[in-house]
Amino acid sequence: MGDQFTPTKDEKFTFGLWTVGNRGRDPFGEAVRDTISPIRSLEKLSKLGAWGVNLHDNDLVPFGASLQERNRIVKEFKKALDDTGMVVPMATTNLFYHPVFKDGAFTSNDKRVRHYALQKTMQAMDLGAEIGAEIYVFWGGREGTEVDASKDAREAIKRMREAMNFLCHYNIDMGYGYKFALEAKPNEPRSDIYFPTTGHMLAFIETLDHADMVGVNPEVAHEQMSGLNFYHVVAQAIEAGKLFHIDLNDQKPGRYDQDLRFSSESIKSMFYLVKLLEESGYNGPRHFDAHAYRSEDEEGVWAFAHGCMRSYMILKDKARRFEEDPEIQGILKELKSLGSDSPFDTANYNSATAEALKAASFDIDNIAKLGLMYEQLDQLVIDLLLGIR
Amino acid sequence: MGDQFTPTKDEKFTFGLWTVGNRGRDPFGEAVRDTISPIRSLEKLSKLGAWGVNLHDNDLVPFGASLQERNRIVKEFKKALDDTGMVVPMATTNLFYHPVFKDGAFTSNDKRVRHYALQKTMQAMDLGAEIGAEIYVFWGGREGTEVDASKDAREAIKRMREAMNFLCHYNIDMGYGYKFALEAKPNEPRSDIYFPTTGHMLAFIETLDHADMVGVNPEVAHEQMSGLNFYHVVAQAIEAGKLFHIDLNDQKPGRYDQDLRFSSESIKSMFYLVKLLEESGYNGPRHFDAHAYRSEDEEGVWAFAHGCMRSYMILKDKARRFEEDPEIQGILKELKSLGSDSPFDTANYNSATAEALKAASFDIDNIAKLGLMYEQLDQLVIDLLLGIR
Amino acid sequence: MGDQFTPTKDEKFTFGLWTVGNRGRDPFGEAVRDTISPIRSLEKLSKLGAWGVNLHDNDLVPFGASLQERNRIVKEFKKALDDTGMVVPMATTNLFYHPVFKDGAFTSNDKRVRHYALQKTMQAMDLGAEIGAEIYVFWGGREGTEVDASKDAREAIKRMREAMNFLCHYNIDMGYGYKFALEAKPNEPRSDIYFPTTGHMLAFIETLDHADMVGVNPEVAHEQMSGLNFYHVVAQAIEAGKLFHIDLNDQKPGRYDQDLRFSSESIKSMFYLVKLLEESGYNGPRHFDAHAYRSEDEEGVWAFAHGCMRSYMILKDKARRFEEDPEIQGILKELKSLGSDSPFDTANYNSATAEALKAASFDIDNIAKLGLMYEQLDQLVIDLLLGIR
Amino acid sequence: MGDQFTPTKDEKFTFGLWTVGNRGRDPFGEAVRDTISPIRSLEKLSKLGAWGVNLHDNDLVPFGASLQERNRIVKEFKKALDDTGMVVPMATTNLFYHPVFKDGAFTSNDKRVRHYALQKTMQAMDLGAEIGAEIYVFWGGREGTEVDASKDAREAIKRMREAMNFLCHYNIDMGYGYKFALEAKPNEPRSDIYFPTTGHMLAFIETLDHADMVGVNPEVAHEQMSGLNFYHVVAQAIEAGKLFHIDLNDQKPGRYDQDLRFSSESIKSMFYLVKLLEESGYNGPRHFDAHAYRSEDEEGVWAFAHGCMRSYMILKDKARRFEEDPEIQGILKELKSLGSDSPFDTANYNSATAEALKAASFDIDNIAKLGLMYEQLDQLVIDLLLGIR
Repeated sequence: MGDQFTPTKDEKFTFGLWTVGNRGRDPFGEAVRDTISPIRSLEKLSKLGAWGVNLHDNDLVPFGASLQERNRIVKEFKKALDDTGMVVPMATTNLFYHPVFKDGAFTSNDKRVRHYALQKTMQAMDLGAEIGAEIYVFWGGREGTEVDASKDAREAIKRMREAMNFLCHYNIDMGYGYKFALEAKPNEPRSDIYFPTTGHMLAFIETLDHADMVGVNPEVAHEQMSGLNFYHVVAQAIEAGKLFHIDLNDQKPGRYDQDLRFSSESIKSMFYLVKLLEESGYNGPRHFDAHAYRSEDEEGVWAFAHGCMRSYMILKDKARRFEEDPEIQGILKELKSLGSDSPFDTANYNSATAEALKAASFDIDNIAKLGLMYEQLDQLVIDLLLGIR
Repeated sequence: MGDQFTPTKDEKFTFGLWTVGNRGRDPFGEAVRDTISPIRSLEKLSKLGAWGVNLHDNDLVPFGASLQERNRIVKEFKKALDDTGMVVPMATTNLFYHPVFKDGAFTSNDKRVRHYALQKTMQAMDLGAEIGAEIYVFWGGREGTEVDASKDAREAIKRMREAMNFLCHYNIDMGYGYKFALEAKPNEPRSDIYFPTTGHMLAFIETLDHADMVGVNPEVAHEQMSGLNFYHVVAQAIEAGKLFHIDLNDQKPGRYDQDLRFSSESIKSMFYLVKLLEESGYNGPRHFDAHAYRSEDEEGVWAFAHGCMRSYMILKDKARRFEEDPEIQGILKELKSLGSDSPFDTANYNSATAEALKAASFDIDNIAKLGLMYEQLDQLVIDLLLGIR
Repeated sequence: MGDQFTPTKDEKFTFGLWTVGNRGRDPFGEAVRDTISPIRSLEKLSKLGAWGVNLHDNDLVPFGASLQERNRIVKEFKKALDDTGMVVPMATTNLFYHPVFKDGAFTSNDKRVRHYALQKTMQAMDLGAEIGAEIYVFWGGREGTEVDASKDAREAIKRMREAMNFLCHYNIDMGYGYKFALEAKPNEPRSDIYFPTTGHMLAFIETLDHADMVGVNPEVAHEQMSGLNFYHVVAQAIEAGKLFHIDLNDQKPGRYDQDLRFSSESIKSMFYLVKLLEESGYNGPRHFDAHAYRSEDEEGVWAFAHGCMRSYMILKDKARRFEEDPEIQGILKELKSLGSDSPFDTANYNSATAEALKAASFDIDNIAKLGLMYEQLDQLVIDLLLGIR
Repeated sequence: MGDQFTPTKDEKFTFGLWTVGNRGRDPFGEAVRDTISPIRSLEKLSKLGAWGVNLHDNDLVPFGASLQERNRIVKEFKKALDDTGMVVPMATTNLFYHPVFKDGAFTSNDKRVRHYALQKTMQAMDLGAEIGAEIYVFWGGREGTEVDASKDAREAIKRMREAMNFLCHYNIDMGYGYKFALEAKPNEPRSDIYFPTTGHMLAFIETLDHADMVGVNPEVAHEQMSGLNFYHVVAQAIEAGKLFHIDLNDQKPGRYDQDLRFSSESIKSMFYLVKLLEESGYNGPRHFDAHAYRSEDEEGVWAFAHGCMRSYMILKDKARRFEEDPEIQGILKELKSLGSDSPFDTANYNSATAEALKAASFDIDNIAKLGLMYEQLDQLVIDLLLGIR
């Protein structure tokens, strides 16, 4: 089974416990698979080449567990981490499953719910720290509306800010050293969710007390639901120094949240994404937030996990080939040279430059006539992806 | 014809010259209407109750006009402004029509094009200042890609930043005092456009040398193309102090850029938008960036312009009624009181609060059972919109 | 509470038992409301003005119930129908909830599942007939794929045809006299569902052994998920004599299946729909296939049900006003007269007409210049909807 | 340059004259390329391996040309066909460019326009017949609405039927022997277009006087605009014996009509499409209805045309490999055998079968537990597409 695309732990592949543990429940049907225990997941994923797992508090510790039960579970889990050589780089909170969160958590109209959500998050941060997590993800499952009359959207933003500020302070106070990563989603399970894209999250972060502590966790499916170019989205996060975590999966645009096996649909987009992650120096986890089709038994779950990592490895290899392809690189070199002798230094404004530039003459009709070879370039990429070059 | 919904100049309604001047050209057909001259537009719009017009440089001064011709046109136009009592609160640059911009302007792969775009913008800023504009809008018509191999998206962002920084400096240098307003669009005429939503623009602005000078110009159609909740989008911009201008029109989600008559499709969303604009203290222009259907002659164009303003006026009246409706306000009061006696001050973190909150006990099952009356509230809004209450 | 928009049984409003009985379970959270018993639903809905209810087999009789239990339930239910004056005009089968249907029912790759689905449907048809249903709806919950390699789509179509033909024969054989109504959906819970729109269903029907027995059951949400104009869709079904049932609710395009309260989002589209239903002579049930928000308790459920019917009544009144509005009717009269004196009878082909038409001269440039008054007309409709005329 | 993926005329690749002739005009910019003459297109496309070209009347004969000019053009064009060994398998009518069609052609509210559209179509059919076309395509560019008040959708359908019936009769009367192929599109340039998908067209066809003469021309971009699975759509058309022509290109869902180079975006979907076309025995043209990016000069146009054909050839080879892959075929064999011993002949109804089936016992819980290996199968397809197997 092993070939050059077999992953090793150096790749930092991680899976949410909730992903391989997904039982296939959906709005129109009940679970199709038995629960896979966290410890079994560790064992299987480790053998497949994964580096670690991530979890919501309740993926490990059942809702409402006693302190004693919680401690027993954690102890066993930590032992299993040791035994399997796995890590937990990221933790998060389940703020959506219990009915109390039906109107959101940090943005709920009920102040008690907002406070309870803070309590649950602090406890989950304690748990994450105990098992070694260094990144803490916030996905506001139900932080949105169906009825905009019910809540001033500005007020919802302020509530979210208050919660994030409180938790940043808690992070400092406890000395946990977490990096916070905010995850956007446009809709589902609410009709519209606040901060619907990674862009909105990036903007929101700048308004926080501790903006430096907070970055983003973009998810393929969530941005593609809105038809956005995920590569562009992640590039902006990286360029701003804000890519703290990433959720890899796949999604057909304009429909329900699918969480498909990584790169099983959007081959070309996922190629640019992997190329960007590899070339940008991003060294965080490559986290798969996806799940097996409902048609699968447990064996299918592991085939799914294997496929996620395999496709990443293949695309990483394609990215290397892209860099080494003389024809592709030849075109790129030519594109980079276009107009490179234009004499203005516009990176540093001064009045003289502005004056000179305003007075300059450009042969725009001839510049406009230049063909840019993008069709040729794109077909070379298609050939590369299809294994023809 | 006049009734309580007839607009006055106090409403600050503006139209782009390109909107009423739209000749109905589309990808599959040629123009259907004659050009309406800028001066005729001023006269007609003023009579209809508009406050001003906005323009791209080439809406007023033809591409490639001589300085003499330009000055004559500007002089006549300023006289017409005086004659009609109209203003030009906003100006912008056409960086998309000429083939030289086929790969974008500020992000073009050709350095000469990037420089030419700066030149054209500086000249257009000069023009705008001369006719009194105080807001300068940037819509990057073609700042995107079809072929992501052709351009590193991070590099494109840096190019955009360089251009915006240069022009902020120019604004200061010339003492123009413009507020810059960046306008996002997800796609069309490019397959994907950088900074696809207002959220992405807000985040980008924070990375500029003069972030305070720069805000956003959200457009209904552009955000709805991606299926986003426009009211949420604008609320975030307002809450961040960044709503510098707004483009009002309408759009069915998930299709080509339609620029439909304001509130002709999304009645409920546009109600929340108008309510927000009126209640937030936004006092900038209410700008319509829309155009008449291709089925219309000039008379239809003025019916279109009239309808944009009329629907705004009607929705503004509905917003007032919402505030005065005892049944609606009764529900809202009840919603605001939910859990209001929860004793924790989470607006100001301290360790003791965190400790107390972690130790608190919440009766979440009973809280979860409370019905929130959102169906009833939403139906009251529907009744209000339909004129039944 | 009663006003001119209070429904009576003459309106033929019906609700699925599963709609008011929806407990608010979704992919990210568990049920928020207790079960409402079928009998309680009958009582409450009858008081609110509904005419009847519809049901899946398992909405009434639990999956796996004994014959004795089934008969007891049915007996009690029939009594409750009598007591409340309610009817059951439509019945259908749950072919999606149990895991056995994970790959579809009639199109499953497992022949046993296909046969079991037929068995379950025949039994549910027996049940429906016993309680008076005259329409039988087919919604193929999981008749689709994520993995197109797994199933030849042509084979899936053939399997669906075999099932429908079998059940048509059964309908005749048993003398049930059902009209079958096929319901399309583009995706969810499968990545893609076969026969994704009402158009595809209408085409499929023509290939059946008993095409006359089979029509469609279009659902607002399902067509709007794909961004289609629901009014156009229903018009085609009516024009073809195939509107056998209709599912009323609401939906924002390009997202998960929302089943929102009727006309709570798409006010303008729903106006044209109601106008069409009322004017076309459609005399089947007006069925609401929607459910209350997850924020609601039982009281909210009844507010939801009330709102569905109320909005229909209001829009029906608007449709009447549209017909009586002299300004609107004046424009429509003018539109109808355009070119009405063109002398060719193209409804009946003959060579002489074709010859004469080919030789005719049209003043197309002048015809093209005519303004069509659509902006004015559309604004009149907006005014009408907003209660301003 | 030649390799195993170099096309020959046996592949029946065709291009619209309007595709390689596209000058890059879009809603926000003017043409970027010079016109390529039809004769030059024939020469270049023939050398690249194409089999033929298709055309709208005005792609060859300018609007308003005199009879003499028309005849001269046709004569020269026919000679060029002979010289280059190219054919014209399909012709169609431009019923959208001139302003007279602003409210549609066959469904216009102006009877003169409806008649003029018939005249123009008859003349274009004459032209097509003269140059050897055997398929006649109908794309109703503007057969839709923005204002549903303006036109009863049922009336629009009747108008369309009258036109199609008239033209079917004309086809018979003139002995042209055309097969008619109707092409659906959901929107653009109208807000909503009647018969928005191939499914709606298939249904409409069954209501025509000469349904046998009429089939469909599905286009990748048009169905993907609505997010539909194009492979499913084409499978239904083929299964119904109605695939008379096909338009190959590519498109990102939920946006403007892109007409991208074939298989440049939707690699996996296009694989299933090619596999279907090749295996179904479809022997009509493989027509590319796409155009080069606006960034391209003429050289880029030919690179585009080359890439369309090349990707088809590569995917055809992948389809062959799929059939020969033992691992893939092993899984498919297993899937086909699922429950194959279920003893009921449901292809032929009789009462005894129904009775027996109703009485049968199914072990549904155990059937439900079977894993279907779809994750594994799908990953094998991904590996195949990426050239790893």
